[in-house]
Amino acid sequence: MQTILIIGAGKSTTFLIDYLRKSATEKKRYIILADVSKDIAEKKLRGQENTLAAEINLKDPQSRRSLIEKSELVISMLPAFLHPIVAQDCLELGKHFFTASYESDELRKMKEAIDSKGLLFLNECGLDPGIDHMSAKQIIDREKAAGNEIISFKSYTGGVLAPESEDNPWKYKFTWNPRNVVLAGQGVSRYIENGEFKYIPYHMLFRRLEKISFQEVGDFDAYANRDSLVYRKIYEMDNIPTLLRGTLRRSGFCQSWDVFVQLGLTDDTFEMDLPNGFTKREFLNTFLPFHKEKSVESKLQQILPWLDMSIMEKIKWLGLFEKDALPKTKGSPASILQTILEDKWKLDPMDKDMIVMQHQFEVKTQKGIKKITSSLVCKGEDQEHTAMAKTVGLPLAIAVDMFLEGKIKAKGLMLPVIPSIYEPILSSLEKKGIIFQESEELIS
Amino acid sequence: MQTILIIGAGKSTTFLIDYLRKSATEKKRYIILADVSKDIAEKKLRGQENTLAAEINLKDPQSRRSLIEKSELVISMLPAFLHPIVAQDCLELGKHFFTASYESDELRKMKEAIDSKGLLFLNECGLDPGIDHMSAKQIIDREKAAGNEIISFKSYTGGVLAPESEDNPWKYKFTWNPRNVVLAGQGVSRYIENGEFKYIPYHMLFRRLEKISFQEVGDFDAYANRDSLVYRKIYEMDNIPTLLRGTLRRSGFCQSWDVFVQLGLTDDTFEMDLPNGFTKREFLNTFLPFHKEKSVESKLQQILPWLDMSIMEKIKWLGLFEKDALPKTKGSPASILQTILEDKWKLDPMDKDMIVMQHQFEVKTQKGIKKITSSLVCKGEDQEHTAMAKTVGLPLAIAVDMFLEGKIKAKGLMLPVIPSIYEPILSSLEKKGIIFQESEELIS
Repeated sequence: MQTILIIGAGKSTTFLIDYLRKSATEKKRYIILADVSKDIAEKKLRGQENTLAAEINLKDPQSRRSLIEKSELVISMLPAFLHPIVAQDCLELGKHFFTASYESDELRKMKEAIDSKGLLFLNECGLDPGIDHMSAKQIIDREKAAGNEIISFKSYTGGVLAPESEDNPWKYKFTWNPRNVVLAGQGVSRYIENGEFKYIPYHMLFRRLEKISFQEVGDFDAYANRDSLVYRKIYEMDNIPTLLRGTLRRSGFCQSWDVFVQLGLTDDTFEMDLPNGFTKREFLNTFLPFHKEKSVESKLQQILPWLDMSIMEKIKWLGLFEKDALPKTKGSPASILQTILEDKWKLDPMDKDMIVMQHQFEVKTQKGIKKITSSLVCKGEDQEHTAMAKTVGLPLAIAVDMFLEGKIKAKGLMLPVIPSIYEPILSSLEKKGIIFQESEELIS
Repeated sequence: MQTILIIGAGKSTTFLIDYLRKSATEKKRYIILADVSKDIAEKKLRGQENTLAAEINLKDPQSRRSLIEKSELVISMLPAFLHPIVAQDCLELGKHFFTASYESDELRKMKEAIDSKGLLFLNECGLDPGIDHMSAKQIIDREKAAGNEIISFKSYTGGVLAPESEDNPWKYKFTWNPRNVVLAGQGVSRYIENGEFKYIPYHMLFRRLEKISFQEVGDFDAYANRDSLVYRKIYEMDNIPTLLRGTLRRSGFCQSWDVFVQLGLTDDTFEMDLPNGFTKREFLNTFLPFHKEKSVESKLQQILPWLDMSIMEKIKWLGLFEKDALPKTKGSPASILQTILEDKWKLDPMDKDMIVMQHQFEVKTQKGIKKITSSLVCKGEDQEHTAMAKTVGLPLAIAVDMFLEGKIKAKGLMLPVIPSIYEPILSSLEKKGIIFQESEELIS
């Protein structure tokens, strides 16, 4: 009997848990799902045979370690900053460790110890990071093996609404952590294009857009996503002249979101302490110049002269011109904006989200330069069974399953960028309907 | 014999040291000037009787305390982050402590101990903070005493070039710490206008300008300076509906400086590691989008469409379109920009700097609302005897002199905002030519 410990039973764990619990009896496994709330864990397990819901107090080493000791392998679905604590326990107790989060510096410091104990610590095995790595690296390795040279790689991912649920002017709702959406892009974004290093400050990010199209679901805007340069090393393409990773939003979203960025409403660096009863309109007005006569609307158009009717309509739809009270008056501008948005961008029960991902390669071959486009569109089923939860949870669940079955033999501190890891996972994902459509054309 | 210890003999200390050393013998005082470089200290003292140059190792408590023990009073002209260390020594050894820097939280924590030992710790007694406090508070207290109510207070200060030295297209050179100039305004700026709280993010700051005029020296642009709201407490005007502090630059400067802000060249949050030989033109290009054919100049105008010939001329004058190598290739964008600017914005030996300060009050009186304008223009003599060094150093020197003579009797942790401190200092400053011109007009 192999025991799997899953820590964290949050929103994005539905598919992960379902995948592992449903095969538990057949595969002679025992699943422990630990959460700060035992109730939530119990609900997610649905009374399945060979499973146990447990309460965990993450601050108490004894509480963590008594659960970890019982298992072969731990999956951490906790917020990223908590991973190192659990990873350290796993290292000391000799347990394998899996996450869908970015490999952190703390984890990297454990690398030698992980190696010497013969453990597998697999990170970045969700969607982004995760499926992006695997699907891109599969093409990169294939083209290299064919003797071709990749001279450009651009990769775009977005967690958006399925077109049938785009029923507000923004064509957007929160399908993922709202705080991360509000703060997205802060700091400088870096990439390289035709050998030129490029840096985009946050306040320029939502203006430097590219249009990315999907045959099935139409056009999106892409903005550069954080530090693309680190992927040159991860993908073993140190000298590639063009490498850019971007985030996708439905066309028109970024230009309107930029209004908040320009005004300072997404600032998370200072706390406001506004009077009770302060209205949404007054909140917006604090970021506009004073004028004796002019309305908030006309000051907004004056300070951001490119605002058109469609942008004004989106701002208006969020209620920011209304004189009703703010849902929250203390906190950073970003956190106050978030509470306003959470109310408006809430998923309805039958809303479907959608994951869109597109890789674009330019590859030098003996016949000339070809462009490869590889696209994934994955729609959610409903508010709970989201495409986000599916694409984050399934790769991780499959990785764990295959590792326990001996089909993945890798050890050490790993990302899913080697064929022996990504090949079996990608082919299992295809069976679950997570399929990339690839096309090629010679461009010169 | 009273002993004064001055720690730090940097650029801005010339007037301070001269004022105190010249009267040392007559006033039966002994001046110790301590610096990390004894040579520099010696040069500043010019062999004056009753003075001593000393070397100080700030990291060594013994080195600091052996000098502090010998003196009645310590003036710290060190970078602001070092003040708390010296202040703590002074507190323990029972010595008075003077600076021209902002009162810090660390100092505030010492408040009770300072009071109970009967010491004077006087901060913010330079130019800005310093002369701004004193000259404003003199008018505030006078108007309040006359039964009037101040309904608006705006105060602007700038360290600029005297008109006769404005011999480059920017009409600007570094007359003060270049790093502070490059980073000026970062973070959010806050103020209140007609009862409305206002917040300006950094990337909007150099566009939200006011025009401020001086009869003698013409027009300047003002941008909001950090957190104006804290001054409501300092000046005892908790409920004033309008309070704004601003920074002055010669008209046209801010609009051109905004180019660097918009592109991200003033970013100090990440390090670049550019290849040796990287040119200024390439540096500028890293902040612009890639384009196969377009020049750096045309991409710049495309991304910032409001750029006119006069702005382009200023960028060009700095050499940013040139293909010569950067003076420095490693460091934050701000620090690389700084090295480019330091070369171009260097003061010539006979260049004169200038301090401009203007307070604007709106005061409700029995006769109606009057506007009071109080302006200071102070020109430097040459590259060494700058107006900046004069206006920072003299108030502090005068405060120390008057305190030792018993003309200032205040004790505790103080700012120069009470009449018993600011009155004698302001009248001594007038004798040194630092004179505000005041005018009044009824506006409604």
